[in-house]
Amino acid sequence: MITLNVELGRRSYPIFIGSGLLGTPDLLTPYLDGRDCLVLSTETVAPVYLEPLRAMLGNSRVETMTLPDGETSKTVGSLESILDFMVEKKYSRDGVVITLGGGVIGDVGGFAAAIYQRGVDFIQVPTTLLAQVDSSVGGKTGVNHPGGKNLIGAFHQPRCVLSDTDTLRTLPDRELSAGLAEIVKYGLIADAGFFSWLEEQAPALLKRDPASLDYAVRRSCEIKARVVAEDETEQGIRAMLNFGHTFGHAIERCMGYGQWLHGEAVAAGMCMAAEFSQRMGWIGAEDIQRIRHLLTRLNLPDQPPALNPGDFMAAMSLDKKVIGGEIRLVLLTGLGSVRVTADYPSHELLDMLSAQFIL
Amino acid sequence: MITLNVELGRRSYPIFIGSGLLGTPDLLTPYLDGRDCLVLSTETVAPVYLEPLRAMLGNSRVETMTLPDGETSKTVGSLESILDFMVEKKYSRDGVVITLGGGVIGDVGGFAAAIYQRGVDFIQVPTTLLAQVDSSVGGKTGVNHPGGKNLIGAFHQPRCVLSDTDTLRTLPDRELSAGLAEIVKYGLIADAGFFSWLEEQAPALLKRDPASLDYAVRRSCEIKARVVAEDETEQGIRAMLNFGHTFGHAIERCMGYGQWLHGEAVAAGMCMAAEFSQRMGWIGAEDIQRIRHLLTRLNLPDQPPALNPGDFMAAMSLDKKVIGGEIRLVLLTGLGSVRVTADYPSHELLDMLSAQFIL
Repeated sequence: MITLNVELGRRSYPIFIGSGLLGTPDLLTPYLDGRDCLVLSTETVAPVYLEPLRAMLGNSRVETMTLPDGETSKTVGSLESILDFMVEKKYSRDGVVITLGGGVIGDVGGFAAAIYQRGVDFIQVPTTLLAQVDSSVGGKTGVNHPGGKNLIGAFHQPRCVLSDTDTLRTLPDRELSAGLAEIVKYGLIADAGFFSWLEEQAPALLKRDPASLDYAVRRSCEIKARVVAEDETEQGIRAMLNFGHTFGHAIERCMGYGQWLHGEAVAAGMCMAAEFSQRMGWIGAEDIQRIRHLLTRLNLPDQPPALNPGDFMAAMSLDKKVIGGEIRLVLLTGLGSVRVTADYPSHELLDMLSAQFIL
Repeated sequence: MITLNVELGRRSYPIFIGSGLLGTPDLLTPYLDGRDCLVLSTETVAPVYLEPLRAMLGNSRVETMTLPDGETSKTVGSLESILDFMVEKKYSRDGVVITLGGGVIGDVGGFAAAIYQRGVDFIQVPTTLLAQVDSSVGGKTGVNHPGGKNLIGAFHQPRCVLSDTDTLRTLPDRELSAGLAEIVKYGLIADAGFFSWLEEQAPALLKRDPASLDYAVRRSCEIKARVVAEDETEQGIRAMLNFGHTFGHAIERCMGYGQWLHGEAVAAGMCMAAEFSQRMGWIGAEDIQRIRHLLTRLNLPDQPPALNPGDFMAAMSLDKKVIGGEIRLVLLTGLGSVRVTADYPSHELLDMLSAQFIL
């Protein structure tokens, strides 16, 4: 087991990464201390992993609540049903919310923990690759709004994160690839060596080689934890983690959430951001080629779907990164380095969209 | 104009207190910088104070939204309508929410600001005495749940608070008295001298003497700001501000929110807490007499309404101060000092309730 610390002063917390963590006695005991627990999980995950998790909760009162899988549960409606349940079951401010599942349950459950009685403790037990390398680290919680993704939410750091990499064995292939998209992102924004390592390890990762997956999860969490520690509430540098996401969110929004997996939209979004970076003269054609090639090998899209450029621009302008009406983009200045900027010719953006979306 | 600083590190902010502040050019300019503003107000307050406020907002885009007056607007439904409006009007993370009105609009509007795009700036312009001395200070925001008051919310500090004491001239008598209840609380929990001053000044306060009201608001905010600076998220000492509130919330809950004003319920709740303090042997009968006498002179109830003791206990046990099933109470150890404790004989509590509620 590896323990990584996310350094956030009084809100610092450990991420435990390794094989066989679910069911390990005493690992969560210091965070519970007999307090009431609410385990939130999904219809697919609960039957497999709820029992080993319950066995770790000692003599705490434990209630469980299960939501349908997928992005459709990331709504104000789901949030309300969790809050209603917590009131009905009389959780005090001393209760602990434990989210067991992927990014959606972590985001909506973490947000419920953030606003129930102005904030109760929560613990993340991510069981998808995407959640282990991205959504479980850094305290972003929230739900979607019909008008945009993640428009309602809060920063609320977990007390600890337990990432049992054995759970990745049962993950569907498509979700494994979606998680790998975010892992590629960490290489692209911060570590060219890690990107090269991913190029080498692509076959092993797809074969779910435990050692390769462990390292990929660990290195991704290290990079994200370092960025989050510098800028917890995204006043500046944290925005770099949104590389590929402004385009990716617009893809998800135009297609309707849930058509493409988030990681798939991010993969195509990273290719769009890379292409725009090339238009700015910041990276070369061979860089884009390497990115597209790696993503394709990981069974990820390297092109957006056919969409209307005007609709796409409208969807981008609803993104949270839009400040004072300008669309800020995270662009590559090389493999392993990025710049966040709103200083680009906007007609270039429309040009690129028009060229890409052959409608 | 007096400027008080609430010291919270990076989240520190000023409270401006004085006559004629609404309409003062440039007072808010440093906090706006041309950014989009959303003014949230109520049906009663907007017609009187919206125009002078708008005149302070310079060249910012300003949208306004008005909610019905009173506790009935402090719901998840109102919150959603504000968030929907913000999405519809395309507010970015850079927008500023300004709440103009009493405690309800400040709480629900502040909570919307806390969770819209994971947090945008907000400015409080309280126009009731209660809001000026209590809810606008300290960053507690939230809405009620059918299962209890303030069960859903967040800590979200404003960027500044503008308390124009001229707005108290138009306040209904009953609301003036409700605000005075919280002011009496500050004397009781922290400053025996201030309590004596209130005994002297009761007639002047009821006559709305500007100098008396200014000082009462200022001293109340000073006490609250000091407590909040020590314990922003109520891990410990901040709980003392809930003196009278565990009983008061139970009164509101049993009667249905909005029957008694919050300050009225707190007045009766403080008398109940004082009486229980006497049962513990911590204060004398003459202390209770002084408290009851002052509250009565301020046209506030010194007794709870007729309620069922069992229902009342059940309502108390839903209070946020309940930790691990124990009802923690804020009790007086003298005029001007309190102790937060769950260490009391619980049969004594039921005894007192049974004696008070002659049903």
